[in-house]
Amino acid sequence: VLAALLGLGAVLAYGERRRRAAQATPAPRYPVYTREEVRRHRTPADRVWVTHGTEVFDVTDFVELHPGGADKVLLAAGGALEPFWALYAVHSQPHVLELLREYKVGDLSPSEAPPSPDGTQDPFAGDPPRHPALRVNSLKPFNAEPPAELLTERFLTPNELFFTRNHLPVPAVDAGAYRLHVEGPGGRALSLSLPELRGRFPKHEVTATLQCAGNRRTEMSRVRPVKGLPWDIGAISTARWGGARLRDVLLHAGFGERREGEWHVCFEGLDADAGGAPYGASIPYGRAVSPVADVLLAYEMNGEELPRDHGFPVRVVVPGVVGARSVKWLRRVAVSPAESPSHWQQNDYKGFCPSVDWDTVDYRTAPAIQELPVQSAITQPRPGAAVPPGELTVKGYAWSGGGREVVRVDVSLDGGHTWQAAELAGERAAPGRAWAWVLWELRAPAVEAGTELEIVCKAVDASYNVQPDTVAPIWNLRGVLSNAWHRVRVTVS
Amino acid sequence: VLAALLGLGAVLAYGERRRRAAQATPAPRYPVYTREEVRRHRTPADRVWVTHGTEVFDVTDFVELHPGGADKVLLAAGGALEPFWALYAVHSQPHVLELLREYKVGDLSPSEAPPSPDGTQDPFAGDPPRHPALRVNSLKPFNAEPPAELLTERFLTPNELFFTRNHLPVPAVDAGAYRLHVEGPGGRALSLSLPELRGRFPKHEVTATLQCAGNRRTEMSRVRPVKGLPWDIGAISTARWGGARLRDVLLHAGFGERREGEWHVCFEGLDADAGGAPYGASIPYGRAVSPVADVLLAYEMNGEELPRDHGFPVRVVVPGVVGARSVKWLRRVAVSPAESPSHWQQNDYKGFCPSVDWDTVDYRTAPAIQELPVQSAITQPRPGAAVPPGELTVKGYAWSGGGREVVRVDVSLDGGHTWQAAELAGERAAPGRAWAWVLWELRAPAVEAGTELEIVCKAVDASYNVQPDTVAPIWNLRGVLSNAWHRVRVTVS
Repeated sequence: VLAALLGLGAVLAYGERRRRAAQATPAPRYPVYTREEVRRHRTPADRVWVTHGTEVFDVTDFVELHPGGADKVLLAAGGALEPFWALYAVHSQPHVLELLREYKVGDLSPSEAPPSPDGTQDPFAGDPPRHPALRVNSLKPFNAEPPAELLTERFLTPNELFFTRNHLPVPAVDAGAYRLHVEGPGGRALSLSLPELRGRFPKHEVTATLQCAGNRRTEMSRVRPVKGLPWDIGAISTARWGGARLRDVLLHAGFGERREGEWHVCFEGLDADAGGAPYGASIPYGRAVSPVADVLLAYEMNGEELPRDHGFPVRVVVPGVVGARSVKWLRRVAVSPAESPSHWQQNDYKGFCPSVDWDTVDYRTAPAIQELPVQSAITQPRPGAAVPPGELTVKGYAWSGGGREVVRVDVSLDGGHTWQAAELAGERAAPGRAWAWVLWELRAPAVEAGTELEIVCKAVDASYNVQPDTVAPIWNLRGVLSNAWHRVRVTVS
Repeated sequence: VLAALLGLGAVLAYGERRRRAAQATPAPRYPVYTREEVRRHRTPADRVWVTHGTEVFDVTDFVELHPGGADKVLLAAGGALEPFWALYAVHSQPHVLELLREYKVGDLSPSEAPPSPDGTQDPFAGDPPRHPALRVNSLKPFNAEPPAELLTERFLTPNELFFTRNHLPVPAVDAGAYRLHVEGPGGRALSLSLPELRGRFPKHEVTATLQCAGNRRTEMSRVRPVKGLPWDIGAISTARWGGARLRDVLLHAGFGERREGEWHVCFEGLDADAGGAPYGASIPYGRAVSPVADVLLAYEMNGEELPRDHGFPVRVVVPGVVGARSVKWLRRVAVSPAESPSHWQQNDYKGFCPSVDWDTVDYRTAPAIQELPVQSAITQPRPGAAVPPGELTVKGYAWSGGGREVVRVDVSLDGGHTWQAAELAGERAAPGRAWAWVLWELRAPAVEAGTELEIVCKAVDASYNVQPDTVAPIWNLRGVLSNAWHRVRVTVS
C-alpha cells in the first residue's frame, strides 16, 4: 500500500515539475565534477548524487518519492543510473528523463577517463565489468551477491545481479576455438565444439536456483570466527538455464544408464591457479545420467548466452546441488571411479561437528556436500529497519536441495513463539524436481508503534525437513551450510 | 566395562550356586500361585517374580547380577521368561536353568487357564498373541513399541519386538486362497496367488527401517495436547525384508517405466473397518517403478514368513518413506492418476504450521507425508537414570528418509552447548539407498559424581539436513514428524 501511495505521489510530482520545466529559462552552465567527487554523495546526509550519461544529478529530494522505494534508488547513489535502469524497463519513458533533468547539478569532467588498465601483471585484469549494485565480498577473485533489496524483486534473478562465486580469475575464452572434452575409462573420448554441443543435442531448459555453500555465513561467523567469504543472505539466485543435458552427452559418448559400483562425473574449468591447476568438482554418476535430475551443460542463462562471470561459453548446472559442483568455463567432463581430486572436492565444501577445529579437521571423515538442506531468509524488511505501524509485509525466499519442493514457510513476529504460514509463489514443478526457489510473503496484521519485532522465518520441504532453530549447534569451521531460522529485528515507529 | 564386570560376577555366582545346589536336600513342596499373583511382583520393592514353564521364581536378588543389565531382566518381571529367552540364545544353556532353580518360590496353579476367549463379538478377538516386552500404546487396534532398553541391542529388530502399528483388527488370511490384485486404468489387471508372487518374480532383499509418523509423539504432546497414540521413541524398527519388487510386478502387469503427468500407486489392505472400508495409502508412481527405490511386495521378514501383525502373507515395504505407506495384508495394487482416496492418505499423516488447530485445519493445503525427515534418539541411558561416575556410554539410533545416509551424529552432555561426534555402526549402502538406521555410541570421558547431565543427540544426513533444536516450533495438531533433538536428563551418583 505504501509503495502504491508513493507511486501516486511521484506521478503527481512528475506533472508539477513538467509544468515548471516548461516555464524555465534556458539551461545554465553547470559546474564540472569527477566520478570520484560524485561517489562521495551516497547518503541523504551527504546528498545523493547520480550520473546519467555525462550529467550529474542531486536526487536527494526524490529519494523518498521513488515509486520503487527509497532503498532501491539508494543502490545507485554515487554512481551511474544506467545499469539499474537497464534492469527495470519502467525507466525507459521520456518523462523519467525529464523528471531527472530537474535535479541536474553538474556535468562530468570531460577529462574523466575510465580507470587505467595498468594491471598487466594482475591475473584478474581481464575480469569482466560488473553491475554496481552487487555487494562485493572479494574483488580478486570476484565474489559478490545481489543486495537483499533486489533479491526477491523478481522470480528470475537478472543475469547482471546473479550472485557470482569465482575461485580464480575469469578465463578469456575464444568461443570459436572452444572444445569440450568428454572422457572416460578405457580411452573413450569425445571432443565437442560449441556448434556441435548446440547442434547435436536437444536444447533442454530448466529453471534452477544455485546457492553457495557459504550463503548466510556472516551469521555463523558471529558465533565464532570461520574461514570464508562474508556472504550475507544473497549467495543464492535463480535463472532459466538452457543447454544440452549431461545425460544426453554421456550416452552419446557411449556411457550407459547405469554403472556397477560407485562412479562419478568429474568436471574441470578453464579457470586455473598460478600453477595451472584448474577448478574442479564432481557429482555421482547416477545423478549425472538420471533422466529426471536435469543436469545441464548450459550455454544460456535467462535466454542470453552465458555472461563471462557465469561461465561463458559453457558451464555445468546441477539443480538441487551446492553451487560449487556447477563448474563454470567447462573444459573437461570425465567419468571416473573416484570423486574429483580437486582441492574443492576433497578438502573443502564439507560439514563438520562444531567441536572440530583446524587442528583436528580430517576432511576424509565427511562426505562432499552435494544436496543442500532446506533454507529460507527474509529479504524485507531489512535488519534494523524502522517500519511504520499498521499492516506489515514480510518477504523472502525459500529453497531446498535435491528437488524437494518447499511446502510451507512459517513466519513469526515474536522471535519464534507464534507462527503463521506465508503465501508461496513460484513455478509449478514435477514432484521431486522442484529446482527453483519459492518467493513468499506474509501480510501481518497491524503492528503497533513503539514496539520491537523479531521477525523469524523457517521453511519445510517435501520431506518435511525443517531448518534448525539456532546457528551455534550447526557452526562449522568453514562456515558452510548456515541454514538456521533467519531472524530480522525491526522497530515499529 | 560395567556390563562386562557384571557378566564376570554372574559367572562366578553361577559356580558358587552350582556347588551349593549339589549339597542341597530334595526339593521341598512349593506354594501354588496364579498368574495374577505373579504379575503383582514386578519391582524390587514388591520382589521380582518370573515364571518358566509352570514354576515361579523370585529373582529379586539376581536382578543386579544379570549379565545383560538389570533393566533387561526387569522387562520380564511379573511374567514368563520364555518369550525373552527365545530372543536371546545365550539363555539356552543348562547352567542358566540350573541357576534359575535356586530362586524357585512356587508353582503355577494347575487350575490356571489361558484367559477365556469370550469376545466373539470383539472384532479384535482374532488378533495374534504378542511379545510381553512390547509397550502397548493401544490394545484395540494393537499399537506397541519395543522398550528403549532393547531397541538398539541389535541392528535388526527381532520380529517379535518390531513396533506394531495397526489401524484395524488383524485380518485372518488363508494363504492358500490369497490373491493379490494389480489393476490400472483401461482395465489392465493381474491376479497373483502367493506361489505366483514368489515364483514369477526374483526375490529381492532389502534391509529397511520403518518408522511411524507419530514416533516420539509424547514429546510433542508435552508442549500442547495432540491427537494420537502416545509413542515414545520406539515407533521405529529395522528388518531384512524379502519379496518381489513392486517394479517387477508393475512392469509384468504392463505398466511402463514412466508415465506422463502425475500418477500414483494405491494400496489396499485386507484389514477393514466395521463398514468394510479397507486401510489404504499410496506412493508416487515414480518411486514405485524406480529401479533404485527398492519398493517391495514383501513376504519375508528377517528370513521368516511375515508375522500376522506385520502383514501376513504380503505387505508393501517402501524404504525411506513413512511407515503408513507400507500397507500390510495387501489385497490390491492400483495405478491411478490420483492419490489413494483413503482417509489415511487424504486426511491424516500430514504436517501443519503450529498455529493450525482442529477448527482451522484444511488437509488439502499440505502434502501427504512420504519421505520422513532426519531423526535420532538416545536409547541408553534412560531418562531419569542414575549413572555411575566415570566413563559414560551413550547409545542410540539415527535414520533419515529418502535413502539419505546418516553421516554424523553429534552428542552433547551439557544440553547442547558442546558437542562430540559419535561412532556410527551400520550396513554399508549404495549412495541414496541408505534405507536402514545407523546405531551410534559415544563413550564420554569421566562424568563426575553429584552432577546432572542433559544428554542430547542430533543427526545429520547426506543432504546435510539436521534436526531442529526444539519441539514447540514443529508442533502440529496430529503430533507427527516429531524430530527435534532428543534430550535425556540423568544424575551421576
